[in-house]
Amino acid sequence: MTIKAKLLPALGMSSVLAAGLAIADDGLENYRQRFEALPHLPPIPADNSLTDEKIELGNMLFFEPRISSSGVISCATCHNPALGWADRIPRAVGHDGQVGERNTPTVLNSGFLESQFWDGREPDLEGQALGPIQAPVEMAMDLEMALERLVGFELYQTKFSEAFPDQEDPINEYNLAQALAAFQRTLNTPNSPFDRYLHGDLDAISQQAKDGMVAFAENGCIACHRGANFTDSQFHAIQVPGSTDMGRYVVTQQEGDMYRFRTPTLRNVAVTYPYMNNGATETLEEAVAIMGKEMLGREFDDATISDITAFLHTLTGEMPDFEVPALP
Amino acid sequence: MTIKAKLLPALGMSSVLAAGLAIADDGLENYRQRFEALPHLPPIPADNSLTDEKIELGNMLFFEPRISSSGVISCATCHNPALGWADRIPRAVGHDGQVGERNTPTVLNSGFLESQFWDGREPDLEGQALGPIQAPVEMAMDLEMALERLVGFELYQTKFSEAFPDQEDPINEYNLAQALAAFQRTLNTPNSPFDRYLHGDLDAISQQAKDGMVAFAENGCIACHRGANFTDSQFHAIQVPGSTDMGRYVVTQQEGDMYRFRTPTLRNVAVTYPYMNNGATETLEEAVAIMGKEMLGREFDDATISDITAFLHTLTGEMPDFEVPALP
Repeated sequence: MTIKAKLLPALGMSSVLAAGLAIADDGLENYRQRFEALPHLPPIPADNSLTDEKIELGNMLFFEPRISSSGVISCATCHNPALGWADRIPRAVGHDGQVGERNTPTVLNSGFLESQFWDGREPDLEGQALGPIQAPVEMAMDLEMALERLVGFELYQTKFSEAFPDQEDPINEYNLAQALAAFQRTLNTPNSPFDRYLHGDLDAISQQAKDGMVAFAENGCIACHRGANFTDSQFHAIQVPGSTDMGRYVVTQQEGDMYRFRTPTLRNVAVTYPYMNNGATETLEEAVAIMGKEMLGREFDDATISDITAFLHTLTGEMPDFEVPALP
Repeated sequence: MTIKAKLLPALGMSSVLAAGLAIADDGLENYRQRFEALPHLPPIPADNSLTDEKIELGNMLFFEPRISSSGVISCATCHNPALGWADRIPRAVGHDGQVGERNTPTVLNSGFLESQFWDGREPDLEGQALGPIQAPVEMAMDLEMALERLVGFELYQTKFSEAFPDQEDPINEYNLAQALAAFQRTLNTPNSPFDRYLHGDLDAISQQAKDGMVAFAENGCIACHRGANFTDSQFHAIQVPGSTDMGRYVVTQQEGDMYRFRTPTLRNVAVTYPYMNNGATETLEEAVAIMGKEMLGREFDDATISDITAFLHTLTGEMPDFEVPALP
């Protein structure tokens, strides 16, 4: 007992709490239990093991503009690491300056999503990866031509061979998708203030943020924004101001899917403005008010909006390591 | 003497040579003396001291797409650090997919140039910085609007105040140019194999590259591609295949300046293809042949072309440190 008492201060309060030896509490444990901290990695699919070689190749491809028809648009153009891995404009601008229909989702923590795109039309990052390359309003590239361009570079021949050993022609669309997906699974943001709070560092977030957490739970935001990535992976109908987007209906042609969109993550939401499927909303306060009204039928008062906004700010995690690659 | 003899191997051959104690030579000292190693920094103008605060701000602004009218084009779009700080396409693609008239010059070592742009229309990087922001085929942005956007971000207010202290309204076009120029003056590539060779490491480049250095000097390439940055900063008339660009004539309206372009740097030329003012030439071999014919009136044989190409490959230096900034 004497030894333990001596050791405790040296370990530090948060380490002790993280180890489960709660010796103090802020009375909110019941709320904390309703949330999940973000793991360092999302689930890795059995058919796309996460190897260093694939990650390195995927990193190159993510920054590679020559797989666009103009030669200047890469994944990183809209998923810009300087801008929360999104673009901070209402709707994506792509090939020849065309404006797409939807707001660019961040790729941060996208490996945790159970479906990809606002309308969930692809089940995973492998399925997602080839979409924007070919979309006429994004990179507008013929996939065969993209692969031909890659084949033209010796360095890509080497890197694909290293990432996909023992394959005769490793530069193909399947492997292109595998490598991009592997890289994106490394773009995670653990250790946000809220994660540290969940892990037991009770001072990691402010009292106002704690009040916001309570309001977030009590008002039912958590019903859809739940789990480690703050999304239920379900599709919910919403028509935000200015949007005529039919959402998941475009995918399923089912009447019941009209105007439904997959619940977006709230991780890093403070650095991934503007909001909503059409990016029509610039501030978190406004977004919280709209969601309260449209999804929960509630008029949040200003204090509640401020509290929830303070809470949402605690969801900004550590930005991932990556390299601006030296392309061939 | 005994002590000295013992110390020499420990110091290493190249250190000894770098210290000026030449104890071996490859017989090419007369050629080496005609070249200059690249300093770590270019001349810093008296009215734009190189401070950490300006460099940091300039780094942010360089990656800032919201000073373009589309909101997605930054300096780094065409001066892409993944692509030798240029774009590796023949002619720049800018606003709404418009294709410009000229090949994007690298910003690497651009602080060493005595004038900016292919036609030398600006004397320095400060003058250069605001051009592409406003050019209708590049970022197509009204400068006042760009400044207004920056004013809208608290972080830019802070960073401009730190970079330009004691100024009442530091977010103005003059300071925008100062910060961008300051950052660009840090984008240098010293310690290329050829620089190490000039510094006395006689094994830093191959025998073929040395033969190429000799051919480069003997054939007169060095007349224009001279000095630390391999350019005389003068304007020379050339019409490469496919080009109708009138070059410096556009600036001066002087008949004698028709088709004249400022000699481009050859530093990092192996990673800044394609070549010529219109980017019509993809390979170094072809570029060397064209320059021999057009500028020197010589038909280089294949061996000479190979040698000069090997030499040019030794001009690729260490790529500069920079950060992908976290933008507001």
